[in-house]
Amino acid sequence: MKAEILTIGDEVLRGEIVDSNKALMASRLLQLDVECHYQSSVRDDPKDMRDAFHRGVARSDLLLVSGGLGPTRDDLTTEVLADALGRTLEFDESSFENLRAFFERIGREMNDTNRKQAFFPAGAEILANPVGTAPGFLLEEQGTLVFCMPGVPRELSLMMDEQVLPRIADRFEGNQVVSRVRARLLRTFGMGESTLEGELSDIAKDGQTELAFRTSFPDNFLRVVARGASISEADARIEGVIAVIRERIGDLIYGEGDQTLEAVVGQLLAEKERTVAVAESCTGGLIAQKLTDVPGSSDYFLGGVVAYANRAKQTQLGVPEALLAAHGAVSEPVARAMAIEVRERFGSDIGIATTGISGPGGGSDEKPVGLVYLAIAWGAPQEQALGGASSTDSTEAAPGEPAGEGVAVEHFVFSVDRLRHRQLTAQVALDWVRRLLLGLELVGPSLMRSGGGSTPG
Amino acid sequence: MKAEILTIGDEVLRGEIVDSNKALMASRLLQLDVECHYQSSVRDDPKDMRDAFHRGVARSDLLLVSGGLGPTRDDLTTEVLADALGRTLEFDESSFENLRAFFERIGREMNDTNRKQAFFPAGAEILANPVGTAPGFLLEEQGTLVFCMPGVPRELSLMMDEQVLPRIADRFEGNQVVSRVRARLLRTFGMGESTLEGELSDIAKDGQTELAFRTSFPDNFLRVVARGASISEADARIEGVIAVIRERIGDLIYGEGDQTLEAVVGQLLAEKERTVAVAESCTGGLIAQKLTDVPGSSDYFLGGVVAYANRAKQTQLGVPEALLAAHGAVSEPVARAMAIEVRERFGSDIGIATTGISGPGGGSDEKPVGLVYLAIAWGAPQEQALGGASSTDSTEAAPGEPAGEGVAVEHFVFSVDRLRHRQLTAQVALDWVRRLLLGLELVGPSLMRSGGGSTPG
Repeated sequence: MKAEILTIGDEVLRGEIVDSNKALMASRLLQLDVECHYQSSVRDDPKDMRDAFHRGVARSDLLLVSGGLGPTRDDLTTEVLADALGRTLEFDESSFENLRAFFERIGREMNDTNRKQAFFPAGAEILANPVGTAPGFLLEEQGTLVFCMPGVPRELSLMMDEQVLPRIADRFEGNQVVSRVRARLLRTFGMGESTLEGELSDIAKDGQTELAFRTSFPDNFLRVVARGASISEADARIEGVIAVIRERIGDLIYGEGDQTLEAVVGQLLAEKERTVAVAESCTGGLIAQKLTDVPGSSDYFLGGVVAYANRAKQTQLGVPEALLAAHGAVSEPVARAMAIEVRERFGSDIGIATTGISGPGGGSDEKPVGLVYLAIAWGAPQEQALGGASSTDSTEAAPGEPAGEGVAVEHFVFSVDRLRHRQLTAQVALDWVRRLLLGLELVGPSLMRSGGGSTPG
Repeated sequence: MKAEILTIGDEVLRGEIVDSNKALMASRLLQLDVECHYQSSVRDDPKDMRDAFHRGVARSDLLLVSGGLGPTRDDLTTEVLADALGRTLEFDESSFENLRAFFERIGREMNDTNRKQAFFPAGAEILANPVGTAPGFLLEEQGTLVFCMPGVPRELSLMMDEQVLPRIADRFEGNQVVSRVRARLLRTFGMGESTLEGELSDIAKDGQTELAFRTSFPDNFLRVVARGASISEADARIEGVIAVIRERIGDLIYGEGDQTLEAVVGQLLAEKERTVAVAESCTGGLIAQKLTDVPGSSDYFLGGVVAYANRAKQTQLGVPEALLAAHGAVSEPVARAMAIEVRERFGSDIGIATTGISGPGGGSDEKPVGLVYLAIAWGAPQEQALGGASSTDSTEAAPGEPAGEGVAVEHFVFSVDRLRHRQLTAQVALDWVRRLLLGLELVGPSLMRSGGGSTPG
């Protein structure tokens, strides 16, 4: 089955927006193992649109169209498609009523131009749009299924899931042509793409399963696909492959699908009733920002100090002036002091600290741009612990978690630009919290040149 | 002149990546007033590629191709294009030498497969790629210019600017067909798109100039285009239009092109030798993170406290427990105290504070989700001021800047989701620093429902 995707809109052709709708539709089709052979975009121009519709119907079995269903004069998809396929436009009373109800629900006057959105080409099957004004529709022409959908990503996404994919799957059911497919995305951090590929190169070679690798800095994503004669067979197969992967690189897999590392860390902290505070120099608030992006983070995130200036490290974190003078702000003793101090001052169970040189300036022969010290301090809650936020039994280490108190400090040299240096450092810091809570070794990413135990420089 | 864009790669067709290269090429073409009529993408499949090349040459005057120039077996653009146009492949000695030199420069062994990248279709003009291994090339076929470029965005971008656009412009020069064009992007914050459009609706109606509006939350961008018989005529015209725009909404325009608000604020702070510190509750480190994203920010950003838990507001910022008990953490007096305290503790010239309810939880009838208090404190530097970071003459207010000490507090109700609430609050905070330093009124965004002077709830 050959699928084709067509998006319509001047803003796409002018490059004013990056059109993510094509990727959205293509990736959903892959869930049904339907491969997209062509993607194209045309302006809101009747002639170009007509050519594209004719070409799509001629060369593809499935044509997904997005855009041009709105109420304005520029929105021409319905009219032009009807004309191109020699069909009349028909008014649909029930769509009109839905439209009226939609406007009533959002408390706005319905415009006359919206009436246009209740017209469809003869023979169309109408596809509901519960979150917008533009219904979609399905036409069958010369054996090709043509789905027309709105261009608003949220509306398109919902319509793909609720209306389009089930209809495509139904077709398959009848034909018995395709196998059933399961796909899952494993999110890993800490190993480079080529090393990861090497580690897993012998897996998924049976023709029924597939592995694909994708870098999304600083993470690497692993897409696992399995096919079967039935969904349960595909399920069993994908579980088998994932079990093998987890056995080999399980500690690098922090989450699945759209789970971010900060969300996973937040969930672990909440489950284990542990709290955290951060002392950030080079990351400048990035770790705090990531942790607080997660709803409900006030349950475990107590706060932090962004100690950018040296003076702030002294006054806000009590790092002794002598320590700063003797070792410099970017040093093992200062990172250690920051982590211990922030934990004490905020009364948290865990304290994290970063101090480094993200660049582009500030480097020296001894301490090059890219050098960063990361420290994590843990232990029983402090006297200052907040009644509400930390649990009463938190003096006992949870299973897998190191008992007692401790501090770990490590340095790395990340030879990447400023923004990536900050992102990478923040990600290692979050990963250390995850590793600490799961009782895993506190290692840094092998994908970047690590300082290891050696002297930097 | 009809332009067409074609990108090649299985990862695009599978929707594994959102292909931003098409928008990159289209927007660059617009700089020369060349409109893109078609955009399409095909897999690394010889038959589909051949069809796309033939179609492009037949219907367009300019065909920009990106992708498929790499060294691997999947990279087929050069071979398939040569075959489709009936040309032989020729080895280019000097490209091979460049390739060898490139690998030497990055200190890596050159692979045998890279040799392939020194072959080009007969008659091709080679386009240098100083940042990667894949040179591009230009072919002329039946009056159509075919440019082939690498798919790595950084390499593509450079090649467009340095190699492709000058060659297209040269063609125009000869033909005298097109006018000269200037385009500029004005970045605004604080007014909704439709209001902005209303304010400027009578401008740029002469057929020689154009205005386009685009939202990039929480900002609105304004694209100004002017044409002329010469570049100097287009320059004069665009300056005239921008002068009128600035007269009307000048205080909303914070920057141009790719200048972020935090970069603009950083530049102002550096110029005026002022320093800043932040006390963040609901923004959770986002303001600090944005400020420190900017290289050189250590010159003016001293640090901050992320006081997420109430206890942290007391211990780290000295907000009296009684104040928190009487008014709650999300209140005018607490925001005020946070801004004053953070300024004093860090010894900065300016202190900013945020406290609010970003949601989804934590709201009440009296204090709904979305409520936020923003405070800014300014004045002469404190005793604690850092010798190096703040200037010696900073007790004198710079022109346009308010003299003496002061605090401003305002509350807003931003009815948007958690992430947008944080983004919007951070942007207003940064905009207040800009406004303070420029002597502009400290107003919030009119695009969102503002609490004004009224009691919330």
